[in-house]
Amino acid sequence: MIQRPRGTRDFGPADMARRRAAENAMREVCHAHGFGEVVTPTFELSELFTMRSGQAIVDEMYVFNDKGDREMALRPEITASVIRFYVNDLSTLPKPLKLYYVGSCYRYENPQSGRYREFYQIGAELIGNDNPETDAEVISLAVKCLRATGLQDFEVRIGHIGALKSLVQAEIGDRTLASEVLRLIDKAEFEALGRLFESRGLSGDLMGRVRAVAGTKGGAEALDDIEDPEVKAHLKELFETLSLYGVDDCQLDLGIVRGLDYYTGMVFEIDAPRLGAEKQVLGGGSYTLSELFGGEPVFSTGFAIGIDRVVLALEAEDFRPEYRQCDAFVVPTEDNMRKYAFAIASKLRAAGIHTDVDLMRRSMSKNLKYAASVGTRYAVIVGRDEMASRSVTLRDMDTGEQTLVKADFVVEELEKLMAGR
Amino acid sequence: MIQRPRGTRDFGPADMARRRAAENAMREVCHAHGFGEVVTPTFELSELFTMRSGQAIVDEMYVFNDKGDREMALRPEITASVIRFYVNDLSTLPKPLKLYYVGSCYRYENPQSGRYREFYQIGAELIGNDNPETDAEVISLAVKCLRATGLQDFEVRIGHIGALKSLVQAEIGDRTLASEVLRLIDKAEFEALGRLFESRGLSGDLMGRVRAVAGTKGGAEALDDIEDPEVKAHLKELFETLSLYGVDDCQLDLGIVRGLDYYTGMVFEIDAPRLGAEKQVLGGGSYTLSELFGGEPVFSTGFAIGIDRVVLALEAEDFRPEYRQCDAFVVPTEDNMRKYAFAIASKLRAAGIHTDVDLMRRSMSKNLKYAASVGTRYAVIVGRDEMASRSVTLRDMDTGEQTLVKADFVVEELEKLMAGR
Repeated sequence: MIQRPRGTRDFGPADMARRRAAENAMREVCHAHGFGEVVTPTFELSELFTMRSGQAIVDEMYVFNDKGDREMALRPEITASVIRFYVNDLSTLPKPLKLYYVGSCYRYENPQSGRYREFYQIGAELIGNDNPETDAEVISLAVKCLRATGLQDFEVRIGHIGALKSLVQAEIGDRTLASEVLRLIDKAEFEALGRLFESRGLSGDLMGRVRAVAGTKGGAEALDDIEDPEVKAHLKELFETLSLYGVDDCQLDLGIVRGLDYYTGMVFEIDAPRLGAEKQVLGGGSYTLSELFGGEPVFSTGFAIGIDRVVLALEAEDFRPEYRQCDAFVVPTEDNMRKYAFAIASKLRAAGIHTDVDLMRRSMSKNLKYAASVGTRYAVIVGRDEMASRSVTLRDMDTGEQTLVKADFVVEELEKLMAGR
Repeated sequence: MIQRPRGTRDFGPADMARRRAAENAMREVCHAHGFGEVVTPTFELSELFTMRSGQAIVDEMYVFNDKGDREMALRPEITASVIRFYVNDLSTLPKPLKLYYVGSCYRYENPQSGRYREFYQIGAELIGNDNPETDAEVISLAVKCLRATGLQDFEVRIGHIGALKSLVQAEIGDRTLASEVLRLIDKAEFEALGRLFESRGLSGDLMGRVRAVAGTKGGAEALDDIEDPEVKAHLKELFETLSLYGVDDCQLDLGIVRGLDYYTGMVFEIDAPRLGAEKQVLGGGSYTLSELFGGEPVFSTGFAIGIDRVVLALEAEDFRPEYRQCDAFVVPTEDNMRKYAFAIASKLRAAGIHTDVDLMRRSMSKNLKYAASVGTRYAVIVGRDEMASRSVTLRDMDTGEQTLVKADFVVEELEKLMAGR
C-alpha cells in the first residue's frame, strides 16, 4: 500500500458533495457582490511569500528548486499571488477591482485538528480603497459567505491597527523603540513588553494605556470608548454601513493586533466558537502590498476563509445535508431488457436526473440491493410487461411504493414524485 | 516586478467565467451519470507515479524531498491517486465505483501552445468491470461532457489493445521477443520494428498483418474487418450500446496503441481537429492498477480530459459566451443618497442579482462610466426625487432606456427587465 503524504487528505463523494455545497454557496455570494474569480499558480517564486511575510515563513513552506535552479514554494496563501497578478497585468483596470479566489494552500507544520499541510481557502481582495464603505463591503461579503454555507454560530470581531499605532508613535519619539514596542504588541508578548518599558524607563502609564486600548472590546456601544478620533470616526461609519447591509452583530475588538506591520487600518477576524482552540475561520483587513511587488501604491482590503474549518464548524452544528449519489437506478428484470434500460437511463440523464444503471449484469434483486446501498431514491424497473406496454415501474426505495408510468413521460413522472417528497 | 513561474498562468475574471462554465457543465454531466467527486492531494510520494508510468517520468515531474527526506512529486496525472485512494480506503464499497475528479496537474517540460507546466484535468474512473456496457458508459460520459461545454467539432476514436496483443502473442512464441515487438508497436516505431523482424528472421507476412491491424479504421462498418473474434464481439456490442446512448459518430481505430503495457482492453481518444498538432483533448481506456498499489485486482475504465485544450477548442469554434461582472450597479446621485444606495444593493444581492455599488465616492457621471467599463447591464440610480417617492431609476446601459420603479419591487422589476432582453 502506498500512503498519501502526511497531513494531506483524500475526500470521497459524500465529503466532496458537502464541501462543494459550502464552496459554491460562497462563490455565488462573491458573484452577487460583484467579485470576479481569479486563479493563480499553485507554486510561485518563494521570494513572493518571503517579501510579504518575512524570511521566517520559509521554514513553514514546501520549498524546492526547479531545474533552472530557481527557488519555488507551494503557496502558503493566495493574497500575495493575487497582488502579483494585479501588479503585473491588471493595474490599469478601473478601480475598484473586486477579485476572489478558491484554492489549495500548503504549510509544512505538524498536522493537528483543523490544521493540515494541504488546506483550502476562499478569499477576496478589493483593490482600490480603504474607506469605511470599502471595509463594510468586504466584511459584509465575508459574513454573507459564511451565512450562505448554513453556518449559524460565528462571531465577527473588528479592530483597527491605527489605534495602537498612533498611541505608541505619539508617545515614543524614538522610532526604533516605537517599532520594537509595536512588534511586541503584535506578538501579544505583554510580559516582554513590560520588561522593555522598565529597562528603557518608559512610563507605566503608557503601558497601561496600551493595555487599555488593546482591551477595548464590546458591541457597537464600545465605539464611544475609542480615544483616537480618526479611528473612532472610521469604525463608527463602518458599523453604520454594516448595519445597512444587515450585518448587525459585530463586536469591536481593538485587541486584534496580529500583523501590525502588514495591515494598514481595519482588521477583522471571525471565529466559530464550537471549534474550540482552533476556532478562527477567517482573518482579514486593509493592507498595501502592490508597492512591495513593484507596483504603484494602492490600498486593498481582503480576507481569507479556511474552508476546512468552515466544514468542521458546520459539522459541529450538526449541519450535514443528505447525500445521495443517485436519484434513479435503472434495473432490467432480465438480460434482454438491458438495452431498453440503457435507453431509459440516457433519457433521464439528459434531463439532468442523477441516474445509474446496471453495468454488472446482476439479477434484479441484487441490483435493488446495490441501488439501496448507494442511497438511490427511486428504482426504475424495466421488465417484460413494462416493455410490452412501453412503461416502467418507479419504486420508491425508502417506502417500497411502486408506480407504473409511461416510458415517454418517465422524466416528468419522476420529477413529480421527487418534488412531492 | 515578480514574475510568475514559467509555463504557469494567471486567469482573470472573464477567463475564469468561461473556464468554470465549461468545468461545471462537465461536472453536472458526471453527476447525472452517477459519478461522485473525489479530491486527492496535489503532491504524492513520487513512487506512486513511477510505479504507474515508469522511472522515465521522473524527468518530467516536479520532484522534491520533504523535510522527512521522502521524495514527493507534484502530480502529473490524477488516475494513480484515485486508485491509491481506492486501494487504501474504498475497496470494500459495492462495485462498480464511479468516481470523477477535477484538478491541476504538473509537467516539467518546455511550454508550448496548449501545453503548460501547470494544467487542468477533469477525469473519471469506473472501478469494477471491463464489459462493453462499462466501456459504453465511460465513453458516453466523456462525449456528453464535451457536448455539454458547447464543443461541436470533435472526433471519437475507439480501439482495443487486444487485437494487436493477441496477434503478436499467437505468432511469436518467444515471450521476450513478443514483448519487444509490442513495445515498438506501442511507440509506433515501425522502422525499428521492421529491422527487428528482419534480424530475428520473423516473417514479413506477420509484419504486414501487424500493420494491417493497426491500420483498421473507419465507421461502424469497419468493425467487420476485425479478425480477432473476441475483440470484434466486444467492440460491436460497445458500438451498439453507444448508439442507445445517442453516441453514434464514433470511429474505429485499432491504431491507438499507446500504453500497450498499461491498458488491458478498450482504448479511446478524442481529438478537436481545429487545434492542429496538439489536437488530442482526451485519452482513456480500461486498465488494472490496483494490484500494483497493493490491492486486489480489479478492472477499471477511465479517461482524462484536458480542460485547457477544451477551452482552446471552444475558442477555435468562436464559442465565447458573454461575460458581465455585474447585472446591476447602484449609483447614488449625491453624497447623502449613499446609505440608501447600500440598502438597495444589499437587497439586490440577497436576491442573487450580481450587484455592485459605488465605493469610491465618485460623481454620478463617473459612476456611470465605471459601470459601463465593467460591462454592467443596468444602472440603478438613486437620487433625491427617487428617494422622496421611495423609487429608483433603472437605466439599461446598452440602450440608455430608463424606467422608474418602486424600491420595494426593485428585485422583481429588474428580473423582469433582464428576462425580457
